[in-house]
Formats: sequence, structure tokens, C-alpha cells
Amino acid sequence: MSSSAPPDQPPRPVRFGILGCASIARKLARAMLLAPGAAVAAVGSRSEEKARLFAADNGLDVATTRLHGTYEALLDDPDVDVVYLPLPTSLHVRWATAAAARGKHLLLEKPTALCAADLDAILAACDAAGVQFMDSTMWMHHPRTAKMRELVDDKDAIGDIRVVNSVFCFRANEDFLQNDIRVKPDLDALGALGDAGWYCIRAILWAVDYELPKTVIALRDPVKNRSGVLLACGATLYWADGKTATFSCSFLTNLTMDITLVGTNGTLHVTDFVIPYEEKSAEFSVASKSNFAPPHWMGSTSKQARRHDGPAAGGPHGAGIREACAEHPGCWWQA
Amino acid sequence: MSSSAPPDQPPRPVRFGILGCASIARKLARAMLLAPGAAVAAVGSRSEEKARLFAADNGLDVATTRLHGTYEALLDDPDVDVVYLPLPTSLHVRWATAAAARGKHLLLEKPTALCAADLDAILAACDAAGVQFMDSTMWMHHPRTAKMRELVDDKDAIGDIRVVNSVFCFRANEDFLQNDIRVKPDLDALGALGDAGWYCIRAILWAVDYELPKTVIALRDPVKNRSGVLLACGATLYWADGKTATFSCSFLTNLTMDITLVGTNGTLHVTDFVIPYEEKSAEFSVASKSNFAPPHWMGSTSKQARRHDGPAAGGPHGAGIREACAEHPGCWWQA
Repeated sequence: MSSSAPPDQPPRPVRFGILGCASIARKLARAMLLAPGAAVAAVGSRSEEKARLFAADNGLDVATTRLHGTYEALLDDPDVDVVYLPLPTSLHVRWATAAAARGKHLLLEKPTALCAADLDAILAACDAAGVQFMDSTMWMHHPRTAKMRELVDDKDAIGDIRVVNSVFCFRANEDFLQNDIRVKPDLDALGALGDAGWYCIRAILWAVDYELPKTVIALRDPVKNRSGVLLACGATLYWADGKTATFSCSFLTNLTMDITLVGTNGTLHVTDFVIPYEEKSAEFSVASKSNFAPPHWMGSTSKQARRHDGPAAGGPHGAGIREACAEHPGCWWQA
Repeated sequence: MSSSAPPDQPPRPVRFGILGCASIARKLARAMLLAPGAAVAAVGSRSEEKARLFAADNGLDVATTRLHGTYEALLDDPDVDVVYLPLPTSLHVRWATAAAARGKHLLLEKPTALCAADLDAILAACDAAGVQFMDSTMWMHHPRTAKMRELVDDKDAIGDIRVVNSVFCFRANEDFLQNDIRVKPDLDALGALGDAGWYCIRAILWAVDYELPKTVIALRDPVKNRSGVLLACGATLYWADGKTATFSCSFLTNLTMDITLVGTNGTLHVTDFVIPYEEKSAEFSVASKSNFAPPHWMGSTSKQARRHDGPAAGGPHGAGIREACAEHPGCWWQA
């Protein structure tokens, strides 16, 4: 992204235009306000009044933030560098390709598309326009994830990954189960798979460095609503080298966000991977070369804590990071 | 078990006879010495010298512990109340039924038998002789497990269980993979499934109160050695009401001992269920009615710690128990 500032000055913030006032946009707007490299330049909704309400509710400066009463008007705003698009999944192809065609970079809410062909169309539009594409799977940009990546890539610490399990579920209330866009076949038709299983699949692919499995077999008896939208499901994934992964996702069970990764040399656990329990720090645990030392265990564990100054779900622009790591050799769990 | 002590005196300790000097017997002998209600009365091995060495190595009083040079002699010892039988699985039917026929109660090492028919034969022999049968799956008798049982049974805390995942694996060394009885088809023919998967399956059945699944489907591509003994495998279990469970077990990956249980109201995690990290305390975590409270999580979690005076793998006779529980309302993870 270009900047008109001279080289000895900080670059101009990236100017986001928020296309649609979905509830997830509240969180992203907060992150954009907190991140030093980002600014919310404009909000577009189906009415200017809705855009104004969103801006006022989310701490945006209504005097300087441009408020657009149509999505098209936001796309035509010359002072928007990046369109953040949190609309329902079924609308992604139309508006993502439109944004790219107007020369806007794209931050696209997840799930990015209803099928691979739709995502290919979006990516092709971005390529053709020479704009950047980023999906808004926030935990991928959390500093903890970078630290976990280092460990997962460390063949001495983790070794060859053999098993990855991931669970992401939450207990939706009755209103959600009746009325939310995520249970509607014409809006977010992927249901729990798109909203929650997306994260599990991403976690699994992240863990194996995006090597695709040779076989994926759905768990039996997924739960669907009357419209056929998935409310709970899961699958097992198999790789050519014998690695396996399993995930479960659901709108019907208590909020749970787990990755468990088992390698030949080490084991990683994280139980809040999508949204950390705490805003300013996040933990995971790694045990390496664990062994029995009767009557209990010995091994080398590090319980990694990453502390940072930005919001927990800080969006693509990471804030300043401080790090606090503790190594606990010996018995590998500290209360 | 009968006692000749008058009612106002403590009952006579249960007198164990250890049949075979397997390495697991060292741990059980230690527990028998530490538990106030138990005593090691005799050791039987294929030679009296081996029995003597075992007794000396494990802190038994060689002057008072009777040492038998054959298994039969131990079974004929009138001062043995209970036979603890740690022999390889393929020998269980023969020696377990022989012990029952001599009127000895039976503590049988796991896996109890190579197939259900063999276990039925052992149970029938115990029934016919009027003796007690207990399998030696130690974590079932840990005080933490009783506390977890309370929580799992609490429909307000956990609700209906929908997903249970369990992993038990350890990284065996080359000597184990070549020579251990657990990779030999004529000794412990169930391999990793009997040695490690046994615990996962027990954990899953324990979690669902022993309701049997309607369908069990093995994961693809289990790893076997040249003799066909399983070194790594797993399965998915399905119940009629839609519950699912998955387990993975292996001799080839880093020591990992997980139960993850997700219900409609709560989630339980334990990462050292088979053998606790610490001898004198053990933890698990339960999160109940967890919810999002942007930008992080809220909910009610209790991280339960149970502290006790006995050995971590204390065998069937629990030692005195002290309890330390902490409730952490609000943000549900405490470092």
C-alpha cells in the first residue's frame, strides 16, 4: 500500500472502509482504532442512518468518518484503501469482486466463500486488479500464533506431527438458533462448519504447514436444522504419511476452543486458540520429550505466555509486543 | 474380605500375593506398602531367586515376605488373600482362573484379556469361586477421578455430554519397539491398543457412564509392526443419541494423556489422566456456561486440584485425602 509520507515520517495509516454493520464489524472497528497503523475512514451500510449509528456506537469520529448510505458509495470512496467486508457469506463473491474491481484491497470476513470455486473467483478478481487479499481469521495474526509456529516448526521440540485434534463450539441461544444469519441457508449456508469448523480446519492445516490431506471423512450423524444448515459436525483427516486429524464444531455445546497437537517429540495444547481468555496475554503449553519418572512424570515443558498491548483479537495489524516466557524443566506442569 | 480382628481394632490388612515380577509390579508393590489397608504377603516368580531380588529391590521385608519359586506355590499360599497378576495378557486366562479356583481374590493388570470371551471366562471363574475381581486401571481409583465424576454427573455444570476426545501415547525407545512384551504377538498381542488405547476407551466409557456406543469405526491406516502388533491406532465411537468420541493411542509419539469432554453446559480438560504430573496433587479444569465477553471470554471456571497423601498411582486402596479447590468466577483461566 502506497504512502505519501516522506521516508523519515511514519507511514500514513491504512484507511479502512467497513462495508456493512455486522456485529463482528464492531470488534474489527475496535481493533482498527487501537492499531497504530490503521484508521477507519468510512462506513457503508444500506442506509446512512445505520452507518451513523454504527460509527457512534463504536467510538468512530462521526465528524471525520465518511458515512455512506449504499455499499456502492463506499466502494467509490477514493479515500478508502481497504474494504473490510463482514457481510453474510452468500454475498461475498458479489461484493468482494466489486471491491477488487474498484482497486480496493480486501479484508474478507470468514468463511471467505461457500465453495472453493467462489473463493477462486474472488482471488482472481484481486489478482486482476493488483490488490491484496486477506481473510479475517484473527487468531492467525495473534502474536501467540507466531510463537506457536516457531515451536511447531522446531523438529527437536515437536518432531514429526502425527495427531492434531481441534474443537471449536459454542452454545448458541434460542434466538440465534432461530434467527441468526449463521443458521439461514440463504445467508451463511455453511452453518457451524463455516462459523466454527472453519477455525478447526484452519488450525489443522496451519499445524501441518498447509499440506492437504489425502482423505477427509465426515463424522456420522451431523446435526442440521430444518433448512439443512449444519448445527454440529466433524471430520477426520488423513495424510499420505499417516498423520491424522480430527475436528468437532457445534453451535450446541459449551464454548470450547482447543488445539491438541502430538508429535514424535512433543505435545502442544492450547484451549482458547480462537479468542484468548485474556485480552493482554495468551498462553499455550508445550511439553517436549516427556517421560515417566515413577511415580509421576518428568520432561521438559515450557508454558509460553505472550503478553501484548493490543486487543486480544487485534486484527491484521499487530500492536507492540512484549513477551513473557517461562521455562519449567523437570516436572512439567506448574499450577 | 474377612478379618479376625475384633470390631474395635483396625481390620487386618489385605494380604497381596504378587504373581510375577513384571516392571509394573514395582509400582503396585510400592502402593501396597504405602497404603495402610494393604500388605505384600508373598511374591511368586519362576524362580525363588527372582522373587527374592524383586522383594529386595522393592523394599519388601525379605524376612517376612514369603518367596515362591513357582506361580503355583503362590496360589497355594494360605496366607494370600488377593493375587495381583501382572503377567503378559496372553497368560491372563490361565492364571486368573487358577487363582480364582484357589479361592483368591483377583487384582488383574490391564488389559485384562485379549478378547471379551476371555474376560468372560475370568469373570465366570471369579463368580463361581465367590471371589472379587478388580482390574488394575489405576487412574479409576485416583481421588481426582472421583471428583471429576461428580462434575461430569452434574447436569448443571456439564449438561449432556456430546463430544469426548482422548489421547494416550508415549514415545517408546528402540529397545521397547524390538523387545518389549507389548510388541510381541504371543505376549501382549493388543499392542498400543491394549497398553494405551485401553485407557482412552476406559476414559470415554467412564465419561458416558458406561453406555456402549452403537458404532465404532477404526481410524484408517493403523501402524503395525512386522508381526502385526498395533503400534499406533485410533477410532471414532458413535452413540444412538448423537454423542461422538475419538481416541488416538500410540507407542510412537510424545507422552500425552488427555481427556477432553464437551457437554451442552460445560467443558472438562485433563492432560495427565493416566498418571498425574505430580505425585501428591492432581488437577483438572472445568469451564461451565462459558461465554464471550468481548474482547475476551467470560464464564465460570473452577480449576480443581486434589491433593492427597498417597502415591499418585495409588492402586485400589486410596490413602487419606485432602482437598484443595479454587473457584475462579469471571475470566476463566488463571495462569
